[in-house]
Amino acid sequence: MLYIASVGSSSGRQKISNEDLCSINPELNSKVLEELGVKTRYSCFPLEVLAADSTPRQRDEKALCSPTDLGKQAVDSALKGTAISPEQFGLVLGYCHSPHQLAPSEGQRIADKLKLKIPSFDVGSSGADLLLHIYTLLSWKEEVVPEVSLCVAANSPTRHINYSEGIAGVLLSDQAAALVITKNLDYSPLFKVVECSYGLKNSFSYTEIPIYEHLSFSYPVPSAVIEEEVSFISSIKEKYKSQFSNFYYASSLPIPSLILEIAKKSNTQPLIEGLINEGCSLSTTPFSALYFELAKLQSNDGVILTSSGLGEKKGYTVLERL
Amino acid sequence: MLYIASVGSSSGRQKISNEDLCSINPELNSKVLEELGVKTRYSCFPLEVLAADSTPRQRDEKALCSPTDLGKQAVDSALKGTAISPEQFGLVLGYCHSPHQLAPSEGQRIADKLKLKIPSFDVGSSGADLLLHIYTLLSWKEEVVPEVSLCVAANSPTRHINYSEGIAGVLLSDQAAALVITKNLDYSPLFKVVECSYGLKNSFSYTEIPIYEHLSFSYPVPSAVIEEEVSFISSIKEKYKSQFSNFYYASSLPIPSLILEIAKKSNTQPLIEGLINEGCSLSTTPFSALYFELAKLQSNDGVILTSSGLGEKKGYTVLERL
Repeated sequence: MLYIASVGSSSGRQKISNEDLCSINPELNSKVLEELGVKTRYSCFPLEVLAADSTPRQRDEKALCSPTDLGKQAVDSALKGTAISPEQFGLVLGYCHSPHQLAPSEGQRIADKLKLKIPSFDVGSSGADLLLHIYTLLSWKEEVVPEVSLCVAANSPTRHINYSEGIAGVLLSDQAAALVITKNLDYSPLFKVVECSYGLKNSFSYTEIPIYEHLSFSYPVPSAVIEEEVSFISSIKEKYKSQFSNFYYASSLPIPSLILEIAKKSNTQPLIEGLINEGCSLSTTPFSALYFELAKLQSNDGVILTSSGLGEKKGYTVLERL
Repeated sequence: MLYIASVGSSSGRQKISNEDLCSINPELNSKVLEELGVKTRYSCFPLEVLAADSTPRQRDEKALCSPTDLGKQAVDSALKGTAISPEQFGLVLGYCHSPHQLAPSEGQRIADKLKLKIPSFDVGSSGADLLLHIYTLLSWKEEVVPEVSLCVAANSPTRHINYSEGIAGVLLSDQAAALVITKNLDYSPLFKVVECSYGLKNSFSYTEIPIYEHLSFSYPVPSAVIEEEVSFISSIKEKYKSQFSNFYYASSLPIPSLILEIAKKSNTQPLIEGLINEGCSLSTTPFSALYFELAKLQSNDGVILTSSGLGEKKGYTVLERL
């Protein structure tokens, strides 16, 4: 059995408002922005550099912070107020779908920032890394899973966005999320991992934002995507209906109005405050949602998080608030 | 202290002779081929598919085996004749610079083939993965390093080569190498890792073969590359001159005549039989050299292996034959 002892989140330093976007991209107007529903988002790069349609390398030169800085801040926010210190970590799993440097891995860079000389790796799927981290730990024999593991995804999609056209700039944000995973109840964990899976083949085909040439998405989102997600969430709810009274839902889907629609149709409570106010960074976003709306959740509430990754593979986890 | 308990190697099933290459690439002639010095090489794809200038995806469809199959064969060859079984591995480090699929990682695919539910990750640098694996294990606190670890690099560069022009097809081969690393002398290891480093910035600028859009190399190789390597090898020899009577040298450099020249100038014994008869797969090749020429090495011989990776970073290790 695995538990989430703590969760943290951080965002880029450069706030980008809807007004900022409209001044760069003539296609945008208040109707489109309202429909999409993201109010602010954050970048690791200064606004004037993003507005200049610069290349990723040019942006790196002017970066306000790196994905690794974001990751470290997310770890700090996860540890704040807990009795857990980095020395207790036995493993660091990291990932960055938009790294500023290729080697060593993001996990190694984070471990280095924490001054840890321990196993540190990247396990990633671009859109569902943190889910894949939990799934990976669950796939091992329990005795080889460390007592406490750190999982961090730190993404900087704004490094790749052309802000003068399209809606990628409206939705995406530089963000990191960190999870402290433990197999020991002594750490007074926030959540029990009731179930976690990764690799379900889904038919989500709305993704087309070129990040690292892997990811992309189109708008409007086909209704089949919504129907499939509603059907999936409903089947999970059915399975756990006797266990949980309330079901919350968060997702790596980058559009708040879409999550609201899915939540409404599946009769779950959406966790989207973080998404509206911080933008989306795919794999990190459902876990940042937990961080931002933790106060809403009560003991015995169920949380369903979904995330889609490379190769149109989907992951999900069901968590119980302890 | 880390030791190499065992080493293994494997190659693709499709043999490609110099005659085969000449029939596909009109630029090639016996003079060029002799100068380069590789006599045969192996691919995971049938010759007629490679000759048809097919895309990587088209080649995958006709593949005779996957990089993971190659990796598994290299592990089998490393374990053959030893008392070590896969159940003893506490960790699998893998890498493939030319994967047929992106997720999960090569390390996870290898662990799955070995039916192991243990920590399995990719750590890679395209040209120096196995060195980076050793370096990674050495960078941890000794108590967290598993008793026995498996390191595997399985590369399939022939997936990306245009055989109708250039010399990439002459030099490169699909190959895997496996190392069983232990911190325990009870496993009667073959080698002691005397020193290992990765990340030295070097000025090697001869690499230009497009594999995964990271790697490439040009020919003829600038003489500065040779001089730098000679100077580097000589400095290592000087450091260990009182410890070893004989020094052997192997490298990820893909051209046998180049290795011969460097060995001659640095007064070391070249390990190139494997390279001549199997071709080069970059990170795997210096370790395949150990496998093919193990019988040459005697107790107290020193072996210097060098390998260059992403971002023109270089790794090396000094091994003592026990």
